[in-house]
Amino acid sequence: MAKITAVSPLAPAAFPALPVIDGVHFATASAGVKYQGRTDVMMALLAPGSVVAGAFTRSATRSAPVLDCQSKMGLVSDAGAVIVVNSGNSNAFTGKGGVHAVEAITAATAQACGVPQSRVFTSSTGVIGEPLAHDRIVAVLETLAQDLVPEGIAAAAKAIMTTDTFPKGSSATVEIGGKTVSIAGIAKGSGMIAPDMATMLVYIFTDAQIDQAALQSLVSEANEQTFNCITVDSDTSTSDSLIVAATGTSGIAVGRHDGFAAALHRVMRDLAHQVVRDGEGATKFVEITVTGAASDKDAKVHALSIANSPLVKTAIAGEDPNWGRIVMAVGKSGAAADRDTLGIHFGDVEVAKDGWRSTGYSEEAAAAHMKGENIVIGVDIGIGKGRATVWTCDLTHGYIAINADYRS
Amino acid sequence: MAKITAVSPLAPAAFPALPVIDGVHFATASAGVKYQGRTDVMMALLAPGSVVAGAFTRSATRSAPVLDCQSKMGLVSDAGAVIVVNSGNSNAFTGKGGVHAVEAITAATAQACGVPQSRVFTSSTGVIGEPLAHDRIVAVLETLAQDLVPEGIAAAAKAIMTTDTFPKGSSATVEIGGKTVSIAGIAKGSGMIAPDMATMLVYIFTDAQIDQAALQSLVSEANEQTFNCITVDSDTSTSDSLIVAATGTSGIAVGRHDGFAAALHRVMRDLAHQVVRDGEGATKFVEITVTGAASDKDAKVHALSIANSPLVKTAIAGEDPNWGRIVMAVGKSGAAADRDTLGIHFGDVEVAKDGWRSTGYSEEAAAAHMKGENIVIGVDIGIGKGRATVWTCDLTHGYIAINADYRS
Repeated sequence: MAKITAVSPLAPAAFPALPVIDGVHFATASAGVKYQGRTDVMMALLAPGSVVAGAFTRSATRSAPVLDCQSKMGLVSDAGAVIVVNSGNSNAFTGKGGVHAVEAITAATAQACGVPQSRVFTSSTGVIGEPLAHDRIVAVLETLAQDLVPEGIAAAAKAIMTTDTFPKGSSATVEIGGKTVSIAGIAKGSGMIAPDMATMLVYIFTDAQIDQAALQSLVSEANEQTFNCITVDSDTSTSDSLIVAATGTSGIAVGRHDGFAAALHRVMRDLAHQVVRDGEGATKFVEITVTGAASDKDAKVHALSIANSPLVKTAIAGEDPNWGRIVMAVGKSGAAADRDTLGIHFGDVEVAKDGWRSTGYSEEAAAAHMKGENIVIGVDIGIGKGRATVWTCDLTHGYIAINADYRS
Repeated sequence: MAKITAVSPLAPAAFPALPVIDGVHFATASAGVKYQGRTDVMMALLAPGSVVAGAFTRSATRSAPVLDCQSKMGLVSDAGAVIVVNSGNSNAFTGKGGVHAVEAITAATAQACGVPQSRVFTSSTGVIGEPLAHDRIVAVLETLAQDLVPEGIAAAAKAIMTTDTFPKGSSATVEIGGKTVSIAGIAKGSGMIAPDMATMLVYIFTDAQIDQAALQSLVSEANEQTFNCITVDSDTSTSDSLIVAATGTSGIAVGRHDGFAAALHRVMRDLAHQVVRDGEGATKFVEITVTGAASDKDAKVHALSIANSPLVKTAIAGEDPNWGRIVMAVGKSGAAADRDTLGIHFGDVEVAKDGWRSTGYSEEAAAAHMKGENIVIGVDIGIGKGRATVWTCDLTHGYIAINADYRS
């Protein structure tokens, strides 16, 4: 485990004040799964009738808890529900022992909280391939169930951290028919971040009233443009989980066009950005927008090729407006491109146009943009109308230091 | 340009003694294209009737010299031929100016050497997106033509270096019918290395007699298992070029089954390995063999996913037998896999079998293997008969240092 010695320079000033979501209670505990002297398990109890939607890693080697959650998605129930998350061990690639661990935790949680086992969702994050000491988690479940409070979301955000340097939270409120619907979410993740999705756990809660299929649809759509558009190191985790729970306790029915979907999207995008801002070793937050591609899909392929290129990412770390590496990344992506229609911007600075360095290009102006903390790269492929935006960070000595030491 | 301060710890002890290939003459010059105080242009003159084959980057933004070479491949001619290569500037993404530069260099070379322009092959390597000062190259062509000598291949290997820390050469001889056929090759390349192909220039010469189509077929096949199976950073260059010239001066006709094809394959593999051994910042040479995949193609997808994973590469840098990251890389690759049939070896140490850590797995034994300079990773997918081997290096602070500074 890398030492958490400093907070990312791209971190927000402070953890935000999140609204209390009626119908959700939180508790945390120090189970000693791996870490000592800190909390490492969080529980969230959802009121009876809550609706749960989600999105999960597409890894072919996904973990036992992910498979268990996926099997439970879409079930409609009037019972309560529980989310239990541990940090320190991902219970991934742990064979039958991993399945047994999930069974033990979900069964004990169901008993401690009085909900059906089919309504218990678990996530595990941390080292891959080590047996999960599930008995340590089971041992704290009764205490967690007794400690549940409505205001515990900030503590929950801390308990799920691994190599994160700051806890991540975001919220939104929407006025619908004179009443307020609230959304509050937390996330963890800083390395092994790439579509689809990331070593990332995200839990979002709302008091909105919405049916499961409708919520799932909104979550899946927003996921494609938020969590599936970020990358730190192109490495896809075996454990990524996004769970969105709607308690319905506000009594306000929401839908696609009343502002709720947009607010949920904003919360998801904000949390996705925070994960990138905590990218291992990150010193720059990078937004890459590709336009003029043959299709939106091609635009995303180009954008991710740029975002994942070690040469582009090291150039950004070195504050070098090395646009040749952007050309290289577009060329290798596999999506359609024409060298002679390509245009590139760094911030507002036009670097290249129609496949050649722009007349009047100012290396000084481009270099000045690269010195900032927020880097904006625009690439126009010049052959169609497809577009996509993705977010990433630079590749620095910090990434190497964290990952060459991680694990012991 | 990063400073070349030290030779890679993975470099061979010395540049090998290469056989003189009858019918090939070399010369080098200091044209000052970008570098000062070193040679930066090499010329190789091929005897009349030489046959030329090649393989080139598939980048959609490939450079003007690459496009020019590709257009000239396959032409059969009794005339001589010339290869001219400069380092310091890749003449890539240089618009019409880039095409003009190639035209100027090839026309002047044809005149200086008395060969048709259609038999002049050029390569350029170095910075992308800067105009090539082609007049500086043209200015030294007459001198180069006068300086040509049969023994100049080692000097040629030095002139084409960019961030390389050592010149790369390899050779083989084959006895056919009591006579000797010789092969000698040189290469450059250390960063921006990935299929297909790499920022890599490779020139191989032989005195064998073979027709163009047959040579092209052997080159293309061997290329798929050598240069297209190495990766340093997953970044594909706009300039990769492999040119193989057969002068026929030995008078010995060669083919697929007389040892020539195998010898050519060995030279290509050796040069490919040397490129990896000069990977920017490399401290470990890594061979990854995937077996039991659904197909050979799937096996290569898995192997490259492992080889390109920043988390795997940093773990190797840290001498950490972190096999969980191998599982992750298999899972994210997109090729078919079954978590519960997966097996992993580090060297001779069985780490995982049937989707779970092996009984009797010794972390100490695995860690001991990781401390070596040559790391061997074996992954059995366990679902078919597909197999592939690829080679890469670790990801270290050295890579960041070189690439965050490169260019200014």
